[in-house]
Amino acid sequence: MGNEQKILDEIYSELKGLIGAGELANYIPVLSQVPADQFGIALKTVSGESFGVGDYQTSFSIQSISKLFVLSLAMMHTDSDRWHRVGREPSGTSFNSLVQLEQENGRPRNPFINAGAIVMTDYLCDFFDCPRNAVLDFIRAQSGNDSININQEVFDSEQATGHRNYALAHFMKSYGNLNHDVETVLKAYFGHCSIEMSCLDLACAVSFLSREGIGNDGKSILDKSKIRRINSLMLTCGAYDNAGEFAFRIGLPTKSGVGGGIVGVLPGSYSVAVWSPGLNSAGNSELGMKALELLTTKFDASIF
Amino acid sequence: MGNEQKILDEIYSELKGLIGAGELANYIPVLSQVPADQFGIALKTVSGESFGVGDYQTSFSIQSISKLFVLSLAMMHTDSDRWHRVGREPSGTSFNSLVQLEQENGRPRNPFINAGAIVMTDYLCDFFDCPRNAVLDFIRAQSGNDSININQEVFDSEQATGHRNYALAHFMKSYGNLNHDVETVLKAYFGHCSIEMSCLDLACAVSFLSREGIGNDGKSILDKSKIRRINSLMLTCGAYDNAGEFAFRIGLPTKSGVGGGIVGVLPGSYSVAVWSPGLNSAGNSELGMKALELLTTKFDASIF
Amino acid sequence: MGNEQKILDEIYSELKGLIGAGELANYIPVLSQVPADQFGIALKTVSGESFGVGDYQTSFSIQSISKLFVLSLAMMHTDSDRWHRVGREPSGTSFNSLVQLEQENGRPRNPFINAGAIVMTDYLCDFFDCPRNAVLDFIRAQSGNDSININQEVFDSEQATGHRNYALAHFMKSYGNLNHDVETVLKAYFGHCSIEMSCLDLACAVSFLSREGIGNDGKSILDKSKIRRINSLMLTCGAYDNAGEFAFRIGLPTKSGVGGGIVGVLPGSYSVAVWSPGLNSAGNSELGMKALELLTTKFDASIF
Amino acid sequence: MGNEQKILDEIYSELKGLIGAGELANYIPVLSQVPADQFGIALKTVSGESFGVGDYQTSFSIQSISKLFVLSLAMMHTDSDRWHRVGREPSGTSFNSLVQLEQENGRPRNPFINAGAIVMTDYLCDFFDCPRNAVLDFIRAQSGNDSININQEVFDSEQATGHRNYALAHFMKSYGNLNHDVETVLKAYFGHCSIEMSCLDLACAVSFLSREGIGNDGKSILDKSKIRRINSLMLTCGAYDNAGEFAFRIGLPTKSGVGGGIVGVLPGSYSVAVWSPGLNSAGNSELGMKALELLTTKFDASIF
Repeated sequence: MGNEQKILDEIYSELKGLIGAGELANYIPVLSQVPADQFGIALKTVSGESFGVGDYQTSFSIQSISKLFVLSLAMMHTDSDRWHRVGREPSGTSFNSLVQLEQENGRPRNPFINAGAIVMTDYLCDFFDCPRNAVLDFIRAQSGNDSININQEVFDSEQATGHRNYALAHFMKSYGNLNHDVETVLKAYFGHCSIEMSCLDLACAVSFLSREGIGNDGKSILDKSKIRRINSLMLTCGAYDNAGEFAFRIGLPTKSGVGGGIVGVLPGSYSVAVWSPGLNSAGNSELGMKALELLTTKFDASIF
Repeated sequence: MGNEQKILDEIYSELKGLIGAGELANYIPVLSQVPADQFGIALKTVSGESFGVGDYQTSFSIQSISKLFVLSLAMMHTDSDRWHRVGREPSGTSFNSLVQLEQENGRPRNPFINAGAIVMTDYLCDFFDCPRNAVLDFIRAQSGNDSININQEVFDSEQATGHRNYALAHFMKSYGNLNHDVETVLKAYFGHCSIEMSCLDLACAVSFLSREGIGNDGKSILDKSKIRRINSLMLTCGAYDNAGEFAFRIGLPTKSGVGGGIVGVLPGSYSVAVWSPGLNSAGNSELGMKALELLTTKFDASIF
Repeated sequence: MGNEQKILDEIYSELKGLIGAGELANYIPVLSQVPADQFGIALKTVSGESFGVGDYQTSFSIQSISKLFVLSLAMMHTDSDRWHRVGREPSGTSFNSLVQLEQENGRPRNPFINAGAIVMTDYLCDFFDCPRNAVLDFIRAQSGNDSININQEVFDSEQATGHRNYALAHFMKSYGNLNHDVETVLKAYFGHCSIEMSCLDLACAVSFLSREGIGNDGKSILDKSKIRRINSLMLTCGAYDNAGEFAFRIGLPTKSGVGGGIVGVLPGSYSVAVWSPGLNSAGNSELGMKALELLTTKFDASIF
Repeated sequence: MGNEQKILDEIYSELKGLIGAGELANYIPVLSQVPADQFGIALKTVSGESFGVGDYQTSFSIQSISKLFVLSLAMMHTDSDRWHRVGREPSGTSFNSLVQLEQENGRPRNPFINAGAIVMTDYLCDFFDCPRNAVLDFIRAQSGNDSININQEVFDSEQATGHRNYALAHFMKSYGNLNHDVETVLKAYFGHCSIEMSCLDLACAVSFLSREGIGNDGKSILDKSKIRRINSLMLTCGAYDNAGEFAFRIGLPTKSGVGGGIVGVLPGSYSVAVWSPGLNSAGNSELGMKALELLTTKFDASIF
């Protein structure tokens, strides 16, 4: 380490010719209107230094990256008893598939597919009157940026077009795997997905995962063994049906979102966030994956 | 023919020792409270005579038998263009499965599984302000019984606990295979399922299927080729995942419901309705199946 | 009836412009070399008259139609105890799929998919030293044509390229659902598929299915109830994943083969065989389906 | 580090009360006859020291652990072009399932399920006249134990009862995803599974995975990036459908076998092998999992 800024600059320079590659998310209209030619990287070391390149201060829709904060917040409020309601195995199928959910009687495979995150959100409803605000507060505190907020237009669009998520929620409800009302849970869930923040915000907000649970204010928010478990879930389940490919090529625990963001962690070293809206066929940022692959190659370090 | 009443009496007598066998439907509370010790058969010949035995004049919840009326009514208002939205193949899986629906991109396999009937109901919403009343009117006219109605308690229970059907509807909506609101369509769908009528009503109401489309008032309501197509769909898809077993043992086009009713048709000869609330593991009336098997054996005639 | 030849001539005349439509079977080389421009129909009435048009005396590879003879022969040697090894429900999936076989623990859905016919062949191995000859003898006796035989080139090709069938057989063996050696059973199975005969031969050979079990020599070979059960299986399972479509459009119990042949039965009236090598996407003869649809329309009679 | 022997002793002492827990593998008779009350651990540090406790010098059947050597040997002979024939994603289903194989057109999900290892073995057949000896030579060289060999009785049993593997191989052959004869490939495959060696042998033999590719003789046998990729595959796919659970609880790249052995690696620190024949319901050594969980807890270090 020590050459972080130089390496970020190199990566940006090597990849800038590809900016705009991939397809924009089209499942909600507002995401497909984001300018495609944006690319940013931010990195935060465990010693507290931050680095950035490109559009690393521009806010974007974090989408499924929110599932990481929901899981972390849930793990702060429990031991492991909720694992009978959500598994921790890779799914082997698409992120919003109902097939496996039916074969396994309404129990989602892991907390990073939509169904699993909906159950986790239902779980947060046990602890918070407004889980959406609880997640926002957690993110603001960890990133140190109180202006982070929900994009109302994205939220409205999620809710209006979220029939697949309604299907997942009603389906789990039919198996008794949802304690609260479908509307209540999904309102919170759509809120989490609609949060906007920058690469810099994200690199800071997930920094506790690289520091054995030490939060932004220097205090422990989750014990070491729970951090390891979250990181292991990111590695095996964080990139949907691309998890193996991510582990193979990048070698870091990561969590991606269809807004084009990806966060990653090298425990004991750094947290990182990349963003570029163009997606590959599996729904992961095309340029983001390449950037992370270059990062672990150039630093010559992965968890493996 | 000529010995219809004698044969019905024989069947009743041979099976009465088994009355109460099977399990009551338990997916909605009100169905599980129906007294189990009921059993009735009604038969109507193409020449217009009616016969009955046991509880053949007692009303019960027709449940999925309503799908037959919904399909018939839909076929009165169209040619075959809607078949791109619903298939006509047996499903090979449970009646409310989402697996096949996902594998086939939101297109239900046939009009007799829940998903298919929901699309058919959506289709009726194109033609009727209140499809529920249209279906009721159709049934009343064909059975000649204007007092047939919806059981409000069953309806409320269906709606309150119908998360699986909400999941199916939202899922198809996410594929663009539902034109109307989920709430609107399901309200009508739950209404159809909640209709109550007797074996005698049912045998009369499906009589047009045994008479090449000639309705209760002697006029043609559907042409011969459409009647054959409805009958063929009953034969291949009318008993969920038991369709092959029904064809093998009974040899008539039939449609069953979890209220314990089954209607059947021998084209050119008669229509029949049986009812007993106890179900086998596939959700078909235990005694009803036996009664129909005895019926085709004793009359020595099936479609095969 | 009485106008059978006239109707066959009309059908031929209406369809001859389409001769050559569809794709030849390509899973074994020798089938893809059959001249595509062939089309024949033969019909045999229950009173014993035969009619034919086009290439109705040309021999072709019966392929899966052989499954019908294997099943009939098996039913002549047993009651129903083997049904625990093979189901009687439509499969809802492709004819050589392993998915359902795995989900149902090595028990094929019905005797007309490859896996089911392999189990039936295994069953014949209990009764015959050489099931292949037993099936041939049965077919020769019923068609009254002793020159019917196996095409050795087709047989060799089936065996050399039959990896999917080897997979099915070994898979069922692993579940204990095959009593005899994989090689022994498949040798017989490939033999059955490689039998060659004409439309006329076929219409005669399946005539017992239209005559309540009365064979070619006027004696009963299977009782009425078993005939009805075979016919019901043809209706629900005889056209692979097109069974619903066949029932809907044609309305007869049928069995098709990828050689382009289809046999059908109207119980009490006639048996029929059509042949044209071009297949639709589901592996059924394109012209054959149209011919049967015209046939039941022109005769104005189906089982429904 | 420095307290390795002490920690192994502690683990043995804490777990010895559970020796015999779990079920013996029963898919081949010879494995079910292994005495259940055995338990051993061996650990080798990157600096070359070895430690052991319990039955760590007793040979056992490595079964699927051989897949790791097959993959490593294959990666020594190629870049990455074979990845179009085998994927690198977790399977989400049982190790010998055909379902996913059919859904993905004969391409196994990863090299650690049976189908994937069969393709890898097929690949070795391109390079070696006798892949079985090549794998044995590789293992002997890396473990420094020339007496390691195949157990002929296990081999014969695998071959005689391996119908599921024959099904997998024929199935892939039908998709063109096997270049060599089914018999040739499976003979090699069964050979690999039948290799016997001890925990100590195994900890030594996989030591190169903890040392960035430096083999037993101090020379590089695989470059660093390939080692990372093998380790990532172990992490995401090495424990069948328990991969997420292993990552969550243990946090090391591992590979298990139904003989009751598990190997694991902490890159830069050590390799480890545990063995106890009793299996959990997912086919992984009950005691072995517990031992590895205690190991990473006591050393307070995992890859996360």
